[in-house]
Amino acid sequence: MFEAKHSLVAQSLSSPLGAELVNGDGVGFGWYPNVDGDRGHPAMYHSIEPAWHEENLRELTRAIETPLFFGHVRAALAPPIQQTNCHPFRYGDWLFMHNGGLGHFPRVRRELMVDVDPELFPHIRGTTDSEVLFHLALTYGLQTDPIAAMARAIRRIERAADGHGIEGAMQGTVAVTDGSTIWCFRYSTIHHSRTLFYSVDIPTLQAMYPDFERLRTFGETARVVVSEPLTDLPGAFVEVPESTVAILDVDGFREEPFLRDAA
Amino acid sequence: MFEAKHSLVAQSLSSPLGAELVNGDGVGFGWYPNVDGDRGHPAMYHSIEPAWHEENLRELTRAIETPLFFGHVRAALAPPIQQTNCHPFRYGDWLFMHNGGLGHFPRVRRELMVDVDPELFPHIRGTTDSEVLFHLALTYGLQTDPIAAMARAIRRIERAADGHGIEGAMQGTVAVTDGSTIWCFRYSTIHHSRTLFYSVDIPTLQAMYPDFERLRTFGETARVVVSEPLTDLPGAFVEVPESTVAILDVDGFREEPFLRDAA
Amino acid sequence: MFEAKHSLVAQSLSSPLGAELVNGDGVGFGWYPNVDGDRGHPAMYHSIEPAWHEENLRELTRAIETPLFFGHVRAALAPPIQQTNCHPFRYGDWLFMHNGGLGHFPRVRRELMVDVDPELFPHIRGTTDSEVLFHLALTYGLQTDPIAAMARAIRRIERAADGHGIEGAMQGTVAVTDGSTIWCFRYSTIHHSRTLFYSVDIPTLQAMYPDFERLRTFGETARVVVSEPLTDLPGAFVEVPESTVAILDVDGFREEPFLRDAA
Amino acid sequence: MFEAKHSLVAQSLSSPLGAELVNGDGVGFGWYPNVDGDRGHPAMYHSIEPAWHEENLRELTRAIETPLFFGHVRAALAPPIQQTNCHPFRYGDWLFMHNGGLGHFPRVRRELMVDVDPELFPHIRGTTDSEVLFHLALTYGLQTDPIAAMARAIRRIERAADGHGIEGAMQGTVAVTDGSTIWCFRYSTIHHSRTLFYSVDIPTLQAMYPDFERLRTFGETARVVVSEPLTDLPGAFVEVPESTVAILDVDGFREEPFLRDAA
Repeated sequence: MFEAKHSLVAQSLSSPLGAELVNGDGVGFGWYPNVDGDRGHPAMYHSIEPAWHEENLRELTRAIETPLFFGHVRAALAPPIQQTNCHPFRYGDWLFMHNGGLGHFPRVRRELMVDVDPELFPHIRGTTDSEVLFHLALTYGLQTDPIAAMARAIRRIERAADGHGIEGAMQGTVAVTDGSTIWCFRYSTIHHSRTLFYSVDIPTLQAMYPDFERLRTFGETARVVVSEPLTDLPGAFVEVPESTVAILDVDGFREEPFLRDAA
Repeated sequence: MFEAKHSLVAQSLSSPLGAELVNGDGVGFGWYPNVDGDRGHPAMYHSIEPAWHEENLRELTRAIETPLFFGHVRAALAPPIQQTNCHPFRYGDWLFMHNGGLGHFPRVRRELMVDVDPELFPHIRGTTDSEVLFHLALTYGLQTDPIAAMARAIRRIERAADGHGIEGAMQGTVAVTDGSTIWCFRYSTIHHSRTLFYSVDIPTLQAMYPDFERLRTFGETARVVVSEPLTDLPGAFVEVPESTVAILDVDGFREEPFLRDAA
Repeated sequence: MFEAKHSLVAQSLSSPLGAELVNGDGVGFGWYPNVDGDRGHPAMYHSIEPAWHEENLRELTRAIETPLFFGHVRAALAPPIQQTNCHPFRYGDWLFMHNGGLGHFPRVRRELMVDVDPELFPHIRGTTDSEVLFHLALTYGLQTDPIAAMARAIRRIERAADGHGIEGAMQGTVAVTDGSTIWCFRYSTIHHSRTLFYSVDIPTLQAMYPDFERLRTFGETARVVVSEPLTDLPGAFVEVPESTVAILDVDGFREEPFLRDAA
Repeated sequence: MFEAKHSLVAQSLSSPLGAELVNGDGVGFGWYPNVDGDRGHPAMYHSIEPAWHEENLRELTRAIETPLFFGHVRAALAPPIQQTNCHPFRYGDWLFMHNGGLGHFPRVRRELMVDVDPELFPHIRGTTDSEVLFHLALTYGLQTDPIAAMARAIRRIERAADGHGIEGAMQGTVAVTDGSTIWCFRYSTIHHSRTLFYSVDIPTLQAMYPDFERLRTFGETARVVVSEPLTDLPGAFVEVPESTVAILDVDGFREEPFLRDAA
């Protein structure tokens, strides 16, 4: 979070690969605390302050040990800046976060919200496009088939955009998890998404850079998925191609094409 | 705001006539600054901090002179506590605030939001029942006939509640203004609303209490509408009856029955 | 934190034994996360929002498992409301919190701050009397002999108050810990302090109330020290007398007289 | 505040001439509302949110008309981010703000605070070097001779820094006002301060740029002092030299050398 050259907190102040230079409109994270009585249910922390001087953030990320951690810094196009607009979003045991946006969202917001399962509707609490995308995907079966549900949700958004004459319906990267597997999507309607990278496995990296101290602090099975590589070490991070889903589980990463057919 | 025994800020800590003892879930106000280039357009201030130690509130209310001022302290049933949930709400030159609630709002929220004019829908930014009530009233013509529009909006809410087997659809007091006239509604579906009072005109009050210093600081045409009387002076405040709208304009107050017929 | 009848969060809204009815000026907690690489160093969370609807508080306290937990809700006499004024305070591995106040603190603040060890001075970040009391106690050796250091700090405050003609120099309860032992002080210059209670040991309590479900969720060695008893179960909580320090460690509670001699 | 290319709010996101690229650690302003009963006493607004999406800021600056307005966006070296650290600071009818810093402030903080007049000491509420500088200047007579008092305060800081082996004791620009006159200092111990500019008088500017629309909205006597020119119009802004005080009153600007002699 803090120490790497391009850590999440460093990115909040200056994000060289991002569409926005500053990501100062709040910060959030989610994790699986695995406490007695609530095993497998994720917890979240959301703050509207910029990450760089957020003192609770520093305390909490130092104190938390967890097998799976989601972190997000926000750059808002416009107000409101409020905790309900901070990522990740949660439903049941699932966490969801998004780096990107829906084109001209205010014009399609109502149509998409009406399409959300009425049972899920009261669970929408903020004003972001990302939260609506999450609830559309939940409506379309995210919890049973995440890839198919994300595909259907995005196609639904693209239809809504078409109907309003909007280009660039969907853009960005999305990370979803049930606590065991992480699905990372890179997709945009116009095939020009935010960047997405994952780390080479740690033993390979340690073999490549035997003298690099920090690598020794990682467990052998540690994996990192990021918008921007944490380090400049050549070979340490692999870029996920456009229109691809990267799936991370105990067996490591694998990639699949995502929405490469015509809409 | 601050100095009377039952001032708005005193009510935030302890509200003897209110349904909630503490109104610590934010504060807001609106006023008509009448600056050049934007005459007649209201400004707003919203804060999620409790009113009693909110330092900006003290600065701003001391510094603002305005012919018409709306103030509100919030007691939320549940989170989120965020500025978009603070009253008053604004649309164009209109301000709206509400003390009360819609029964089991999460169950009717979607039905009511779908009924809001699609042009107005993107303007809903928070999660409160009050904001949806405001936008329903706008949908039904608040800006041309406020009393008829409020009546239609409330009847619409009562129908939605009926459909979900909810009793106590609507409850509370509502204040609406266009900057010239203030309409104050006291109404509940089960005829048991929060209290509402307005002040006797200042010359009468000054004649009744010739020795009361603070009364001399009010202009002759000053009028106050409140949930709880600011002072214990007998005769200073008149209670608005259940199912009534009190209308305040340059001619003073008048009352009309409101929704006294069967639904 | 949340579920007992007089839980910390319930007390934030209504504190029947407290000097202040509402404790809505922020919330904080500290705990010993025992993560690798930082064993024994406490972490803290501070928020200026009232506890009752603070969403991060609910998330974090559900997710944290720790052998030792300090929680505090604040009632401020005056602004500023800011995280640096939230309890607990930390120095090295020590946590400190205070329920009460120093009489006419603004008049003695400078004298007491000047008396703080210059090395510790830059560590004072807020405006509260409690933080100055903590740093005075650190100056006088809190980390080597907590009881003697607290006694010296309080006597120092009483001398400063005397010099300014202030009665009621010190009042309240204080909890201090190094992560292993907790020292709980109840003392006031005029011998009329806030209340302080500790729980009877759990096996005794379970024997007294064999049918009480919640008691089964506590471990056999669980101990609670509180300003107000969490439950109304007769015999469950023991009041700490005026001018007493209660010491809690792995052997349970014991009491000692504290500052009972003339000043 | 908002509309110019290098407005204060634009500078909060990206400050090309500043030492910090992002000024996202809060925003504040002060003004002279001239309301009845409190004529000449300034009011303030402070917020810990970044200026760029701060909704109250937009409302308030649109609604306020005042003959004299101070605005500030903050870039903190470190936490805490809190309202008591936001500029401007106020004492009586005086406002003060600072762009810059004292070198290694934590090491001289205690010495300088002890030097503040004990009567003024309780008025220090935050943790910034700027607030201590203000109170030193007040101690040395700011309200009777602002230039001499600022000179004495800075020399005092330089002596404290010398004593601790600190180079770069003082750096920055300072603006002070009593509501009638504004004194703007540009000074650093090592003669390399933040930039400071003031606007050419409006009639001259209107003559230079007869076709420039926005200039027509300014009154003939409007004056602006800024860290960075609001526009790229050649000739519109004049840079204040190093070690200079610029004095603005009803007669316009004039400059005087400031601390050009050896310390």
